Amino acid sequence: MTDQRLERLRRLAPELRLLTDAADLEHYGRDWTRRWTPAPLAVALPASADEVQSIVRWANDEHVAVVPSGGRTGLSGGAVAANGELVLSMERMNRVVGFDAVDRTLTVQPGIVLEAVHNAAREHGLAYPVDFGARGSCSIGGNIATNAGGIRVIRYGNTRNWIAGLKVVTGSGEVLDLNRGLVKNASGYDLRHLLIGSEGTLGVVVEATLWLADPPPPTQVMLLALPSFEALMQVFAAFRARLELEAFEFFTDRALHHVLVHGAQRPFAEDYPYFVVAEFASGSEAREAAALAAFEFCVEQGLVLDGVISQSDAQAAQLWRLREGITESLARHKPYKNDVSVRVSAMPAFLAETQALIERGYPGVDVVWFGHIGDGNLHINVVPPEGMAQDVFVAQCEQVTDLLSAALARHGGSISAEHGIGLVKKPYLLDTRSEAEVALMRGIKRVLDPNGIMNPGKVFDA
Amino acid sequence: MTDQRLERLRRLAPELRLLTDAADLEHYGRDWTRRWTPAPLAVALPASADEVQSIVRWANDEHVAVVPSGGRTGLSGGAVAANGELVLSMERMNRVVGFDAVDRTLTVQPGIVLEAVHNAAREHGLAYPVDFGARGSCSIGGNIATNAGGIRVIRYGNTRNWIAGLKVVTGSGEVLDLNRGLVKNASGYDLRHLLIGSEGTLGVVVEATLWLADPPPPTQVMLLALPSFEALMQVFAAFRARLELEAFEFFTDRALHHVLVHGAQRPFAEDYPYFVVAEFASGSEAREAAALAAFEFCVEQGLVLDGVISQSDAQAAQLWRLREGITESLARHKPYKNDVSVRVSAMPAFLAETQALIERGYPGVDVVWFGHIGDGNLHINVVPPEGMAQDVFVAQCEQVTDLLSAALARHGGSISAEHGIGLVKKPYLLDTRSEAEVALMRGIKRVLDPNGIMNPGKVFDA
Repeated sequence: MTDQRLERLRRLAPELRLLTDAADLEHYGRDWTRRWTPAPLAVALPASADEVQSIVRWANDEHVAVVPSGGRTGLSGGAVAANGELVLSMERMNRVVGFDAVDRTLTVQPGIVLEAVHNAAREHGLAYPVDFGARGSCSIGGNIATNAGGIRVIRYGNTRNWIAGLKVVTGSGEVLDLNRGLVKNASGYDLRHLLIGSEGTLGVVVEATLWLADPPPPTQVMLLALPSFEALMQVFAAFRARLELEAFEFFTDRALHHVLVHGAQRPFAEDYPYFVVAEFASGSEAREAAALAAFEFCVEQGLVLDGVISQSDAQAAQLWRLREGITESLARHKPYKNDVSVRVSAMPAFLAETQALIERGYPGVDVVWFGHIGDGNLHINVVPPEGMAQDVFVAQCEQVTDLLSAALARHGGSISAEHGIGLVKKPYLLDTRSEAEVALMRGIKRVLDPNGIMNPGKVFDA
Repeated sequence: MTDQRLERLRRLAPELRLLTDAADLEHYGRDWTRRWTPAPLAVALPASADEVQSIVRWANDEHVAVVPSGGRTGLSGGAVAANGELVLSMERMNRVVGFDAVDRTLTVQPGIVLEAVHNAAREHGLAYPVDFGARGSCSIGGNIATNAGGIRVIRYGNTRNWIAGLKVVTGSGEVLDLNRGLVKNASGYDLRHLLIGSEGTLGVVVEATLWLADPPPPTQVMLLALPSFEALMQVFAAFRARLELEAFEFFTDRALHHVLVHGAQRPFAEDYPYFVVAEFASGSEAREAAALAAFEFCVEQGLVLDGVISQSDAQAAQLWRLREGITESLARHKPYKNDVSVRVSAMPAFLAETQALIERGYPGVDVVWFGHIGDGNLHINVVPPEGMAQDVFVAQCEQVTDLLSAALARHGGSISAEHGIGLVKKPYLLDTRSEAEVALMRGIKRVLDPNGIMNPGKVFDA
């Protein structure tokens, strides 16, 4: 380690763990996007908010860019460090630091893995209800930075709804202690909500206080086979009207194919084009009768062709695996991903247009769809054809994304529902946000991060 | 109307309704605080977002301050115009402009009165669940500007949770169309949440899209008499554990006194020091048994001395009137108000300290308490002694508020739970927010309102 800047950081924070080995730079310099070649200056693993503040002040003095880093499960390149940045990994700051039974809050460090938050809440007889497939790897700090959504948004909303307090170090090195667990607080601008979803471009979370919910009711899971995309919205409406939905997810036959290849168990003997996994409150005769009524209604209407309902937690987990295993089953193919949203009411028109667009744009290509109908959120994964070079493949996909982004603009949608903008979606931001909005974002960044050291080049160019 | 600036505004927006009569200036220049002498330049009543934009651009050119104005039911002076400002009254922009059954959203103009929003939602079989006493006068634009809370926050959260989209005109005259009803949207900074609660200092809402909720379950209302403040938290815990609470409000014997003088019906033959109005889901044997069990438990523990449960909607309304009539019953006395919050868990220690502080600070003075235990929100109304001049009275109260504000800082609380900072609480902002936070607010204001024309002097001095 001969870099003079790092020597000065060592003197300022003598206890700080700093990594500069090539393997560490590669490991910490990339996220799940795998598109950029990692090239950070070094990796810092602070153990305290004080160390984080020292690092950020040093970065301002030395004009070194800082990339805040959690579980690096991001899919938009938000945690990529490819330009001599200092990676600020929060993985050592991963403890539960407090629980309050009256406030029903859990206070945690940012590097704690989402699943550990779930477990800590459960130990206290409560629940942290934001959940998604990367729960075993992603960190709460990253969840906050992207306002993570997931599979239970239809019932519990996004991460934003569960943040009672945030301690952050801003780009200028100030420590802010925002909202402090208050239910009602009308005392000026809510900087907490500005930080949530800002993808590390304004500051870095050093502690979060999370509201907890009542434990979920007993639930059952239904897997449904559908004849068409058009049936999806109608099945959703029928189920929403009759059941207390905890989740309502869909996927296609191509998604099922990959999950089965990856080891999941085949649910139906017949082939069908579309599937839904619905989870709903159960545990009473009335609820069970309502579930049966919803199912029978949809079958009678020809909206559902087959179905199975879980009779045990193990069977529920098996059905969920068909949906939750999709991302992992695709990972080895390095698919090109889009994660888009429109208003729920705009879904039918948008889906029809998108389906046509994909058939034109990706003729003969393996396109895997899944998503969250109740949130208006669609995930499109394009599997590269055998033997195609990645840069050629990405360039082709980006042409389709141009058209998709224009369609989103027409339908009032967003180029990123829950993955964030990062690097991957930056070229399309202006189809979702106006010039005036992006200009305001730039101005706000200059207020919190005057030297532009926090995750520069992510979301927008300064 | 000879003011040259107004002549130019007339030329820019020939259809704009402008008022300059003395009576209009007084009426539109003040809010429910009644502490400042209204002295606006004029009152504009735009009929469209275009007219609002014209006004804001004119104000930038002419360096005229603009005070956005809704129902002017605010209690912190946020809508006061006492320095030659243009009052921008949204009262003519008061229509429902859209409803979507699939998205479950209602789109409204900002001047619509909260009660009209409630009614419009109910017509569609849904509910807009933010509610409070001023529902018949306050406007949704003002609710958004203060992130209004009220009596059902314990169940539904604050206004912020229900805003699916916001159209605003910023201080620089840009029109922003924020979030557009999307459930999931991870595309850069959420400016919608920055605008919510900014008290008209960054821009003015010209249209809002509100999420609607399922209609509330059938409920019953219980009025409880309690022996002490200490019992309050325990009764709250007992009720929260057993019932689905829709509201849990408390008030004191002094509050009851004023409401009875104002015409409400006496609930109990005996006198008691403290009262709770609890509303909870009913309509099933299990729920009714749980309500009875909660009541009996509290009586056995000596936490509740007497109680009555509503047997009809009319009786429920009568019980609610005891709590909701307080503010109106006090209005003729021009009380000095504090509206403070702490974490729920900090309530016992804070209440004990505040009770002692008020006994010392207001010896022999009529102090009326009420509030929302489940939100950690306490309202303190001090009734001026007979014959005391208002300025003397306010100065005395502000000395007590200095001490209260310092106590809030010690307990991690907020000087404004739901009324906003406005003019009234501005001197105390730094006990609730840090110097760094206020500096960031100033910086952010300069980004959205570079000429400082939007509600200047409110919340903080530029």
